[in-house]
Amino acid sequence: MVEVRTLFEPRRVVLIGSSVIREKVGMSSPQLFNDVIHNMRKFFHNETQVLDTKNKENTEDYLRKSESADLAVIMLPPDQSIRQVEKCAKKGTRAFVLITGGYKDSQRRKLLNLKRKYGIRILGPNTIMGVINTANGLNTTFEKDVMPKKGNIAVISQSGGVGSCMLDWACFYHVGISKFAFVGDKIDVDDLDLLRYFGNDKNTKVICLYLEGIKNGTEFIKQARELVKTKPILALKGGITRESAHRAKSHTASIAGLDEIFDAACKKAGIIRVENIEELLNSAIALSKQPPMLGDNVAIVSNVGGPAILAGDAVVRNNLKLADLSEKTKRKIEDLYPGVEAMNPIDLIADARASRYEKVLGLVLADKNVDGVLVINMLKSTFFEPEDAKVIPRVASKYPHKPIVDVPAGGEDFALVHKIIGNTRIPLYNLPDKAAKALRALRLYGIIAQRH
Amino acid sequence: MVEVRTLFEPRRVVLIGSSVIREKVGMSSPQLFNDVIHNMRKFFHNETQVLDTKNKENTEDYLRKSESADLAVIMLPPDQSIRQVEKCAKKGTRAFVLITGGYKDSQRRKLLNLKRKYGIRILGPNTIMGVINTANGLNTTFEKDVMPKKGNIAVISQSGGVGSCMLDWACFYHVGISKFAFVGDKIDVDDLDLLRYFGNDKNTKVICLYLEGIKNGTEFIKQARELVKTKPILALKGGITRESAHRAKSHTASIAGLDEIFDAACKKAGIIRVENIEELLNSAIALSKQPPMLGDNVAIVSNVGGPAILAGDAVVRNNLKLADLSEKTKRKIEDLYPGVEAMNPIDLIADARASRYEKVLGLVLADKNVDGVLVINMLKSTFFEPEDAKVIPRVASKYPHKPIVDVPAGGEDFALVHKIIGNTRIPLYNLPDKAAKALRALRLYGIIAQRH
Repeated sequence: MVEVRTLFEPRRVVLIGSSVIREKVGMSSPQLFNDVIHNMRKFFHNETQVLDTKNKENTEDYLRKSESADLAVIMLPPDQSIRQVEKCAKKGTRAFVLITGGYKDSQRRKLLNLKRKYGIRILGPNTIMGVINTANGLNTTFEKDVMPKKGNIAVISQSGGVGSCMLDWACFYHVGISKFAFVGDKIDVDDLDLLRYFGNDKNTKVICLYLEGIKNGTEFIKQARELVKTKPILALKGGITRESAHRAKSHTASIAGLDEIFDAACKKAGIIRVENIEELLNSAIALSKQPPMLGDNVAIVSNVGGPAILAGDAVVRNNLKLADLSEKTKRKIEDLYPGVEAMNPIDLIADARASRYEKVLGLVLADKNVDGVLVINMLKSTFFEPEDAKVIPRVASKYPHKPIVDVPAGGEDFALVHKIIGNTRIPLYNLPDKAAKALRALRLYGIIAQRH
Repeated sequence: MVEVRTLFEPRRVVLIGSSVIREKVGMSSPQLFNDVIHNMRKFFHNETQVLDTKNKENTEDYLRKSESADLAVIMLPPDQSIRQVEKCAKKGTRAFVLITGGYKDSQRRKLLNLKRKYGIRILGPNTIMGVINTANGLNTTFEKDVMPKKGNIAVISQSGGVGSCMLDWACFYHVGISKFAFVGDKIDVDDLDLLRYFGNDKNTKVICLYLEGIKNGTEFIKQARELVKTKPILALKGGITRESAHRAKSHTASIAGLDEIFDAACKKAGIIRVENIEELLNSAIALSKQPPMLGDNVAIVSNVGGPAILAGDAVVRNNLKLADLSEKTKRKIEDLYPGVEAMNPIDLIADARASRYEKVLGLVLADKNVDGVLVINMLKSTFFEPEDAKVIPRVASKYPHKPIVDVPAGGEDFALVHKIIGNTRIPLYNLPDKAAKALRALRLYGIIAQRH
């Protein structure tokens, strides 16, 4: 059986579509075909071949002469796609990404017969966007010129739209991505295949799942339980209400399970469940950059009072605790800075600059009563300058086993700090609540990792 | 008794600080003084005077000669501030903004004595930022060059940091603001005074409150209950957990009430409570641009499937319902677009352009089973172009009594649509969940408005 690996690490890719096809609604338009060709030629490091089925002779010629590609990406209506799968499979192509949707059950059965007959692997149909691998530039999406920056987060999305939203988000907010898989109808390659592959992928540290339904739940839980020993898995489920579940069935042929059943499955598997796309990516950023949190106790260090109070509320709302700083830590802080009251959340006061942050963060991270730190550094309303933020990764690097997240709260304040330390190992969030949710994910993974 | 109005609509303002003072921690530094002077000279339409107390003669001279300002903004340590309040009050100044904090109880009492003696009104102390009025350019903040764009949202913040975060957010994301009030310790002018003033302010349509404690709860509820008949009030409370409440006491001398008590007070008053800063501003945007929602039934119209399913989940999670479209509406949609299945959430499919949105939105808004509409229009993964978004405000204007919110989901997709219709009456959100929360606020205000 061909490995799923070929879907992401092909030597040679053939793109099969038509430059003349006309559809009322659908994904096999010449424009999309051209955009996929454009992206592959622009980004992919290996060879890309193009097969335009408008010309029958060309097609036969292509199939007769050229060397076989190990991966075929097909964006044609169902019957034409199935014919191309068979032709390519005969010629030796082993992995297929089927972009278009609208397959009937009988057409799906034909694909599965081909899979068995030729030992091929099929992603889709209805993947809409196919796959991205930032390591080798593979990009079968038709989002022209869109390529996320390299990083350690892998995404598996059952929905083209949700995956595309995450992709747009990742590009716009500079989230580092290893791989994207748009799985669509999952008639062959499924979440489990991809989880196994990403589990062994050295470029992937965290796996994000968007799904509307799971097949083979027992096996899924069993395998996920193994995988999470080494890599955290985050899951967002669509169709958790009766009404939208009905739509999910029509959308990706998923029988959306009851929300409670999915929740129990996640708990059993050690999958961290999140509520929306932003929380999914924010949690993934934290898990890809920071160690798991090994206890519940969070210290908050801020140069503003109100946002620190909101952070305290959010910490508690996320089932974490405000750390009781040790007497020694408190005394040291108050000796150094007589105006500062060393009560958690710690308000360093508006004139705190790099050195005050550095010293207090050092003391707090060294405190055995503290399991993780939420930093807040606002700029315009204080004396803090963007460059001052550099002390945060510097201090954090001395305490590699305690997670730390940073909140330059607001709009431009966030952007200014992101410019300075956005590429470091410190996750940044624009509001305290989002940082508290990120710490929740780090704590949940701490519990999951500790249970083994 | 001087009206609170003078705090926002003064004829002449005097800024009192010192260009030589040195503090270890605090707000009366020469740099901040200079930044306030800079902002006032840059933005304020009326006269700004400056009194630098470093020069005793100048001070006496100023107090002897110049015409009295009706508003004094004072950024000096407590004792010096109190002395200046008395001098100015004697000279006829009637309203005071006290920027600095750190007042002892005895110093607060002195201020209250001056208030009684001279009939003055005092905002603060510990306001940190004072006041902003976008209508006349009044801006006593030390955030250099920061001025939000004109709009209909008024903000009252008990915390300088939280207010500053909202201000930064409002500027960065182009949220239209009428007035900002940083109330600090509230020894005189309190939330109620400001609510009454904003209630009568023709530039204000929605009022946002950040507070850590309320004095005089019964009166507050009674008055708020009256005010919400004409303008919605949104509230975010800091210090809702035992731990952070302790910090709130130290922060703004507030005795943070129990969370449940505050919640009950909001319900009684008809104040819409929110959980974080983003939800506060997002809800305010919706309420400032759209009519209240008069029933629970939401239609979702999208060009992508997965995000529409997530929107459906979020709608239900926010205690709203997915509308059952009438048979007539469904038939009309399916007759027009045979590929589209007119089940709510409606997936218009990825090739939907302006005209398909326009027709379907028109049908859905006209359906009596629909009380509000959540539109999703992603770009890169579809054929939708930014210009197509113009049909949304166009259709919406024909149905002025049904709220509509739009989700160009993602990062750049959101920015692109925001450029085209960000200044219209359509509120925009970058994720479905945020739009569903905004509809929740519109629905809650619908219930509040209907109960009268």
